[in-house]
Amino acid sequence: MSADQSVPAPPRRVRPPGVADRYRALLAAGSGTERVEFFSDAVFAIAMTLLVLDIRVPDVPDGGLGEALVDLTPKFFAYALSFAVIGINWASHHRKFRVITGFTRRLVQINLLLLLLVAFVPFPTAVLSEYGEVTEAVVLYAATVAAISAVQAWLWVAARRAGLLHPAVDRGVYRYLLRNSLVSAVVLAASIVIALLGQPLAAMYSWILIWPLSFLAHRAGGRRPADLEPAGD
Amino acid sequence: MSADQSVPAPPRRVRPPGVADRYRALLAAGSGTERVEFFSDAVFAIAMTLLVLDIRVPDVPDGGLGEALVDLTPKFFAYALSFAVIGINWASHHRKFRVITGFTRRLVQINLLLLLLVAFVPFPTAVLSEYGEVTEAVVLYAATVAAISAVQAWLWVAARRAGLLHPAVDRGVYRYLLRNSLVSAVVLAASIVIALLGQPLAAMYSWILIWPLSFLAHRAGGRRPADLEPAGD
Amino acid sequence: MSADQSVPAPPRRVRPPGVADRYRALLAAGSGTERVEFFSDAVFAIAMTLLVLDIRVPDVPDGGLGEALVDLTPKFFAYALSFAVIGINWASHHRKFRVITGFTRRLVQINLLLLLLVAFVPFPTAVLSEYGEVTEAVVLYAATVAAISAVQAWLWVAARRAGLLHPAVDRGVYRYLLRNSLVSAVVLAASIVIALLGQPLAAMYSWILIWPLSFLAHRAGGRRPADLEPAGD
Amino acid sequence: MSADQSVPAPPRRVRPPGVADRYRALLAAGSGTERVEFFSDAVFAIAMTLLVLDIRVPDVPDGGLGEALVDLTPKFFAYALSFAVIGINWASHHRKFRVITGFTRRLVQINLLLLLLVAFVPFPTAVLSEYGEVTEAVVLYAATVAAISAVQAWLWVAARRAGLLHPAVDRGVYRYLLRNSLVSAVVLAASIVIALLGQPLAAMYSWILIWPLSFLAHRAGGRRPADLEPAGD
Repeated sequence: MSADQSVPAPPRRVRPPGVADRYRALLAAGSGTERVEFFSDAVFAIAMTLLVLDIRVPDVPDGGLGEALVDLTPKFFAYALSFAVIGINWASHHRKFRVITGFTRRLVQINLLLLLLVAFVPFPTAVLSEYGEVTEAVVLYAATVAAISAVQAWLWVAARRAGLLHPAVDRGVYRYLLRNSLVSAVVLAASIVIALLGQPLAAMYSWILIWPLSFLAHRAGGRRPADLEPAGD
Repeated sequence: MSADQSVPAPPRRVRPPGVADRYRALLAAGSGTERVEFFSDAVFAIAMTLLVLDIRVPDVPDGGLGEALVDLTPKFFAYALSFAVIGINWASHHRKFRVITGFTRRLVQINLLLLLLVAFVPFPTAVLSEYGEVTEAVVLYAATVAAISAVQAWLWVAARRAGLLHPAVDRGVYRYLLRNSLVSAVVLAASIVIALLGQPLAAMYSWILIWPLSFLAHRAGGRRPADLEPAGD
Repeated sequence: MSADQSVPAPPRRVRPPGVADRYRALLAAGSGTERVEFFSDAVFAIAMTLLVLDIRVPDVPDGGLGEALVDLTPKFFAYALSFAVIGINWASHHRKFRVITGFTRRLVQINLLLLLLVAFVPFPTAVLSEYGEVTEAVVLYAATVAAISAVQAWLWVAARRAGLLHPAVDRGVYRYLLRNSLVSAVVLAASIVIALLGQPLAAMYSWILIWPLSFLAHRAGGRRPADLEPAGD
Repeated sequence: MSADQSVPAPPRRVRPPGVADRYRALLAAGSGTERVEFFSDAVFAIAMTLLVLDIRVPDVPDGGLGEALVDLTPKFFAYALSFAVIGINWASHHRKFRVITGFTRRLVQINLLLLLLVAFVPFPTAVLSEYGEVTEAVVLYAATVAAISAVQAWLWVAARRAGLLHPAVDRGVYRYLLRNSLVSAVVLAASIVIALLGQPLAAMYSWILIWPLSFLAHRAGGRRPADLEPAGD
């Protein structure tokens, strides 16, 4: 943590450089992010691919297979929904890491928290596909995805505070990516309230708002000249 | 999307470059495709390896194991078939990406759709191995693989329209790879019709045609001098 | 296949270079093996990690847990055995690919066949741990691992015939790696015969011979001066 | 093994360099650790992601879902615990391999043993979440994680003895990373004794001590000037 020198922090007792500091300095020489990205990609990919295990082969007489497959529609919908959720978060992670130039121990920890939530997605997905419009199922799902979006935003803020963003990332670009994560987190948090008010179906429909709102946030980002100032200070 | 300058598109309102444009320009500097390829490879590999989970250990007295293993033949056949299907699609994806030089947001989206279909394959495989020659099982399987082939072709066409093909890919080479994907899509779509006409077994046999037809398409590609013109215009 | 110019083959009708040939020539420029290795590594790693799914949590009263865990010993043994089998084959694959400099379509196909067998290993492992010393279980397991060893040898022979071995690989080194794969294949094939003769337990014990025999083959390789001649002709 | 020339070993009969030695010398030229790291990362990532498969969707009437999810708390706790255990070990592996410059056959073997234990974690996790405070469940879990920590330490010691540490790793840095692995191993081994004395719950609470003790070990490492001498001799 003492490596995050660009982060404003309360003053602390000065101590001579110790082993841990020298070790960090040694690592900083080749502080590529490849292995962390690779590891993260693997977790995203595995979580996405495990989703299919929740769709079980129906056990019916041969003549009833067509109908049984149609009855699986909520499973197919849940599969596609969560595949898209993880896929979009992977793409967002990908975009961030193309301009994050290094790593601190704290960033690795935040990233592990993100992966813990991503790898958890198959469970709320299975619950949602099984319990349809039950309030608790909708809340569990929305809370998981909202937490993922919030941790994505946290990772991005922490990377900037640690001074690890590529110098070409100006304030506008920084905010553009931050907004993308926050829009999802806010819509999903709102949907939890809607579900708890007894409207789980309306809560699920509200998730669709993420799409147009992200688009509006994106357009808004393109317009404001104030965003064009450098982000480095 | 505004980065796809080589794609002919309806004229749209000109607007000053915004944050999103600057972000894309920033990324374009190092727009390697490694992480997308890696992520795709992981999904292909996991989907292939999960196929084995559908072959359950038989629960019989010791003396009946031999017979029980023989009874699993449809499971073994389905495992090998889907392993080959995903493996061939991986090799095809691999070939395309060796000459795709970069990425747009749209290409990432098409690629995610491809991966969604690839990761879904274990389900129709399990249905086919359980319901043998039932029409719905054959249609579901053929539709999934046909969709994979069609999205492979779409990815390839979109990469060319975005101007992201290596300059050495001339028109003949471009069409050669496109034909490979289209032959599969057409044969599989035709097999869906055959199955729906009440001949699911004939539909399955028709899949074997993909092999000689791909070979013929390949030979045809090698003969026509018109194919030798550059593809870049 | 026409790219494998170093392979002696029956003469065939000469034809003008076609699209497929030009495509192969285009790819040959950057014919790195990274993506194939990566993809193979992923399949090896997933197959190894899926092995644990076969060890099910016992369903007993709290007081019986200790005994129930002891009863799982065959499962633990099978887990460790197959983890070692796949791990050793991964290391062998790794060693080969450090001196294989490129790829032909045929090599990719042989490699996919190898991966199909590796990804299949969890099934014979589960059967072996469930049916202990039943002949069919031992034969299925031995046949799978023997086939993996044989395809490893085939891959290595095919790479040399295609002229894709690093020039520093002389005949002695070539044979050294080939022997490693063949020793396993021969011992396992012999164990199938022993099992079919009604001695499944003796067959399983014979697998242990792979270790000392590999060591002897390795020492023998280090002695023969004839092995020191170049392998390239 | 004969490549580990920096390891003090009993004298052995001198023999002329054989094929195996030449092969090792050939490989030593490009003895990158990328593929081993990659493979290890994949196993870590898959083991972490498979943990979620142990959390099964409850089968209750719609109205009972909330309560059923609350009843799953031990499962959620076990998921997060093991995700953290594997994640921390991945980060530790990552740190070590950033300063390990090459590989011997022995290092690959130790690494495979580490991966065997990591891939096994989902099983003791499932047992612990099912059998709560049963002594055998706590012992199995602690023994698995203690073994992982011990093998991490072994890997690090073996890498140094083989002369494969980056020259900038001095004795203080070497001991700093070694202490990190040993603290966990010792606390977990002690917790096994506590559990066997009939206090499984106290044993589980003792695991929390790893955190402050690691921190103290880390601070201690930063203080002792004796640690600052080079580790290379």
